[in-house]
Amino acid sequence: MPACYEASRCAEAGMDRIDTVLKAVPEDLVTTDQDVVARYLTDFRKYMTGASRAVLRPRTTEDVRRIVALCAEHGVPLVPQGGNTSYCAAATPGVAGDELVLSLERLNAIREVDAPNLSLTAEAGCVLSVLQETADAAGLMLPLDLGSRQSCQIGGNLSTNAGGVSVLKYGMARDLVLGLEAVLPDGQLLDVLQPLRKNNTGYDVKQLLLGAEGTLGIITAVSLKLVRKSVQTVTAFLAIPEIDALTQILARAQAYTGECITSFEYVSDHSLRMLLAARSELRHPLTAPNPHYVLLEAQTASPVFPLEDAVSQLLEQLMEEGLVTDGTLASGGAQRDALWVLREHIPEAEVANGGSVKHDVSVTTSRLPAFVKEASALVEDHSEGGRLSIYGHVGDGNVHFNVVAPVGAVPATYKAWFEREVSPRIYDLAVAMGGSFGAEYGIGRVKLDLLDRYGNPAKIALMRAIKTAVDPKNILNPGKVVR
Amino acid sequence: MPACYEASRCAEAGMDRIDTVLKAVPEDLVTTDQDVVARYLTDFRKYMTGASRAVLRPRTTEDVRRIVALCAEHGVPLVPQGGNTSYCAAATPGVAGDELVLSLERLNAIREVDAPNLSLTAEAGCVLSVLQETADAAGLMLPLDLGSRQSCQIGGNLSTNAGGVSVLKYGMARDLVLGLEAVLPDGQLLDVLQPLRKNNTGYDVKQLLLGAEGTLGIITAVSLKLVRKSVQTVTAFLAIPEIDALTQILARAQAYTGECITSFEYVSDHSLRMLLAARSELRHPLTAPNPHYVLLEAQTASPVFPLEDAVSQLLEQLMEEGLVTDGTLASGGAQRDALWVLREHIPEAEVANGGSVKHDVSVTTSRLPAFVKEASALVEDHSEGGRLSIYGHVGDGNVHFNVVAPVGAVPATYKAWFEREVSPRIYDLAVAMGGSFGAEYGIGRVKLDLLDRYGNPAKIALMRAIKTAVDPKNILNPGKVVR
Repeated sequence: MPACYEASRCAEAGMDRIDTVLKAVPEDLVTTDQDVVARYLTDFRKYMTGASRAVLRPRTTEDVRRIVALCAEHGVPLVPQGGNTSYCAAATPGVAGDELVLSLERLNAIREVDAPNLSLTAEAGCVLSVLQETADAAGLMLPLDLGSRQSCQIGGNLSTNAGGVSVLKYGMARDLVLGLEAVLPDGQLLDVLQPLRKNNTGYDVKQLLLGAEGTLGIITAVSLKLVRKSVQTVTAFLAIPEIDALTQILARAQAYTGECITSFEYVSDHSLRMLLAARSELRHPLTAPNPHYVLLEAQTASPVFPLEDAVSQLLEQLMEEGLVTDGTLASGGAQRDALWVLREHIPEAEVANGGSVKHDVSVTTSRLPAFVKEASALVEDHSEGGRLSIYGHVGDGNVHFNVVAPVGAVPATYKAWFEREVSPRIYDLAVAMGGSFGAEYGIGRVKLDLLDRYGNPAKIALMRAIKTAVDPKNILNPGKVVR
Repeated sequence: MPACYEASRCAEAGMDRIDTVLKAVPEDLVTTDQDVVARYLTDFRKYMTGASRAVLRPRTTEDVRRIVALCAEHGVPLVPQGGNTSYCAAATPGVAGDELVLSLERLNAIREVDAPNLSLTAEAGCVLSVLQETADAAGLMLPLDLGSRQSCQIGGNLSTNAGGVSVLKYGMARDLVLGLEAVLPDGQLLDVLQPLRKNNTGYDVKQLLLGAEGTLGIITAVSLKLVRKSVQTVTAFLAIPEIDALTQILARAQAYTGECITSFEYVSDHSLRMLLAARSELRHPLTAPNPHYVLLEAQTASPVFPLEDAVSQLLEQLMEEGLVTDGTLASGGAQRDALWVLREHIPEAEVANGGSVKHDVSVTTSRLPAFVKEASALVEDHSEGGRLSIYGHVGDGNVHFNVVAPVGAVPATYKAWFEREVSPRIYDLAVAMGGSFGAEYGIGRVKLDLLDRYGNPAKIALMRAIKTAVDPKNILNPGKVVR
C-alpha cells in the first residue's frame, strides 16, 4: 500500500476524530468560523501560522475536563493557549490542522482573595494586570510583573514559569505558586489548589506542570502568594562607565537597602539610542550618553524606612567611588513611568528596526559582564554589521542579547542568516560559561534543537519518561518542549 | 510449591544479589560490621528498627553512580540516608534485611562559594550548620535554618523540602535551590547543578526530586541561594491574650517593618510550662504567665534601617490596642539565644514527659487560630487527660499540634491509643478546613495511610505513574512516599 494513501487515510481518520469531538462539545464552546479561528493561529512573534478546524473556549474547569477526556478518548491533540504572548510559539498549533486550539480566556473568574493569608486564587484565563489590580484593591500586591502584563494570562505565565522585572526580590512565577488546579491528559482533575505555604505530602506534582508549557496538563486555576504592598518606591536611572561594576553595584545596593531592590535592569547605550530614535517624544534622562545604564528600583512596605535617603546616600557613595558617573532619581508617579518606558519599550524599537534576533541568555551574575563583553566581541567579528541591542534583568543574571539587522539590509534575510551562522556561537559561549540558552522564554516549538544540543542527556531522558508516563497518547501540545 | 518455600527461595536469591553487589563495591565504601550498621537502622523518633547487611558510604558522586547502577542491575533496593533526623522514618530500611543503606555522609565537600552570584554549591552530606558557617565566612547568609541544624544534612533537607524557622521570609528548602546534581535510579547522572536564577529549558526536573525523600533519585550536590547577611536582628517574646489576634499582629509587623520579619513562632502556655518544669535553669521571660506567646524576629541587611526603633514602636502600638499585653525585646547575643531556647527546646521537654503524638498540620494563616481552638476543644473532649503542647511556625500557617500522655499514664500505650482514636479527628478537622495533614515532616513510611486517606486521587495516581516511569525496578527507598 503506498505511503501517500496511508497518510491521506490517516488524515481523513484524523478529521473524523475531530468531527466526533466537535460534535460532542457543547456548541457554545466551539468556534469554527475561520475568521475568528485565525486569531489563534499565529504566534506573537509571527514565526509561524498553524491550522486548526476550531477553537474550543471552555467556561469552567468542568468544561475543560470534559473536553480533555473526549480528546483523550478519540486521540485528538489539544494546543492550550492563554494570552498568546509566547516568544517561542509554544501556544501555536502545527500546520497539519489535526490539532484543536483550547483557549483558556473564558476561565477568568477570581475565586478568592484571602488577605490575612496573603493569597489570591484565580482561574487560568485571568489577565495578569487584572490580578495585579485585584491584589491592589485588597491592599496587597501581586509581585509577578512583566512587559506583557496587559495581555498575558496567568495560566500562560505559570506554564512558562514567567520571569519579568521583579524576579530579583520575589522570584519567578513558580516561586509565587501556593496551589494549583489542572486537568491531566486523561481528563482527571488534579486538585492541589489550597493556598498553603507548607504542604509536604508526597511529590509536589504541581511543580511538574509549572514551566511545562501545557504538555503535561492544562492549568485551570492557581493560588498565588501576595505580598505586603509597597508604600515607598524609589527608581533610579544610572550611568555606569564599566560593565564589570554591575555586580558590585548590585551587591552594594542590596546590602545598603536591606534587599529592598526589586529591579536591577540593564540598558545598553545601543538599545537606548535605538529607542530614542524610534520614539522622538522620548528624552534622554541624563545629561550625556554613556555606554551602560542601570534602571534600579527599590521598594518597601515599611512607612518608617527612610528609603529615598538610603538610595540617595548609596548613589553618592557609588559616584564618589566612580562606579556610577551620573544618575537621576524618581519617587513614583510620572517620573518613574518615564524611566520605565526607557527599559520596557526597547522591544518596540527593535520591531521598528525590522525586529531582532533574540538570545535570552542567563549566566551567573558573577560572569554576566564577561559574557556581555565576549559575546559583543563575537558579534562584532562575525555579524557583518549587525546592531547590538542588549538589555535585561541582569540582577538575575539574565540578559536579552539581541541583534538587529544592519541599516539597509533586508531584516528577514539577515536574521535568518544570523540565526544560522552566528547565534550558535553566542549560545556556545553562554553554555561554556555555565549559563543557559533559555532564561525565561521557555522552549516551545522554537528551541527544541537548542535543548537537544545543550540539555543534560539524563534530563532529556527523564523529561521523555515523564511525558510518556503522564501523556501516553501525546495529546497535550504535541511537538512542544519534548519531541 | 508452598508459598513459604517460594518466599525463602526469594529471600535467598535476594541475599545472593546483595552479595554480588557488596563484592563489586570497593571495600572501603562498605561497612558490614553490624555494630556500626546498627547506628543507621533506627529512625530519629525510634518508631522502628530495620535491618541491613551493610551500609555503603560513597565518597564521590561517581561512587554513588556506580553503586546505584550496580543495584539497578541486580535489583537490590537502596535506602538513602543523610543525618537520619526524619520524623517519618523516611531513611530507615525495612525489617526484611533485603535493602542496603546508602549513607551520603562522606559526600561532604563544599564545591564553590560564588559570592557575587549569592550562591553556594555543596555536596549532599554537608551538615546544615557547616553550610551556614561557610556562607557566614563569605560575608553572606544561608537562610535555611531548623532545630536539627547541627546534625541534619543538606541532601536530607532537600529530599524532605525542609521548613524551619525562617520560611516566612525566605521560603522552604525548595525555594532556595538553584541547581541540583543527582543520580537517577538507572545510574544516570542528572547534572542541572549550575547556580542560575533563571533557566527555563524544559521541565524543571530537579523539582521532582526535591521533597521526594530519595524515591526518585539520590541527590549528590546542590547549588543554594544565599542572601545578604543580616546586620541587625531584633527578637521579641510577646504575650498574646487572644489567639485570634495572631494574623493581625503578623500583618501589622510585616507592614511596619517592610517584611523584615524572619520568624513568627507560636508558643502555647502549655508548652512553655512543660519546658520550664523540665529545665529548671530556664526562666520565664515575662512577668506573668499568659495563654499564648509569639517569638517574633526581625532582621535586615541594611545598616540604615532603624530596625530596633521600628519594632519598639510597633510593640507600643500593639500594646496600646491590647493585641499584645506584655513583651520583651532582645537585640542579638545571649538575650536572643535565651528567647530562642524557649521555642526550640520544647521537643526536648516533650521527650522528658514521655514524648508526644505529633500532628504537623498546616492551614491558611487566616484559619489557624480557629483550627487551634477547635482542635484543642476536640482533644479536651476525647483525650482522657492528654496534655496539649502546641507551638510552631504560625506565620506559615504551620502548627505542631502535639499531645503528651497524662501524668501517670504509660506514654507508649497512651500514644498508641491516641494515634488510633483521636488523631484521625484532628487530621479530619485540618483537612476539612482546607489544610494539610503534613506541613513539613513529609510522608516517609509513617504517613502513607494519611496520604491514601486525604490525598487528591489524581495526585496519587500521578505520583505512582511518575515513580513507575522513573524507577521501574523500585530500587530507591521502596515503601516510602508511594506504595
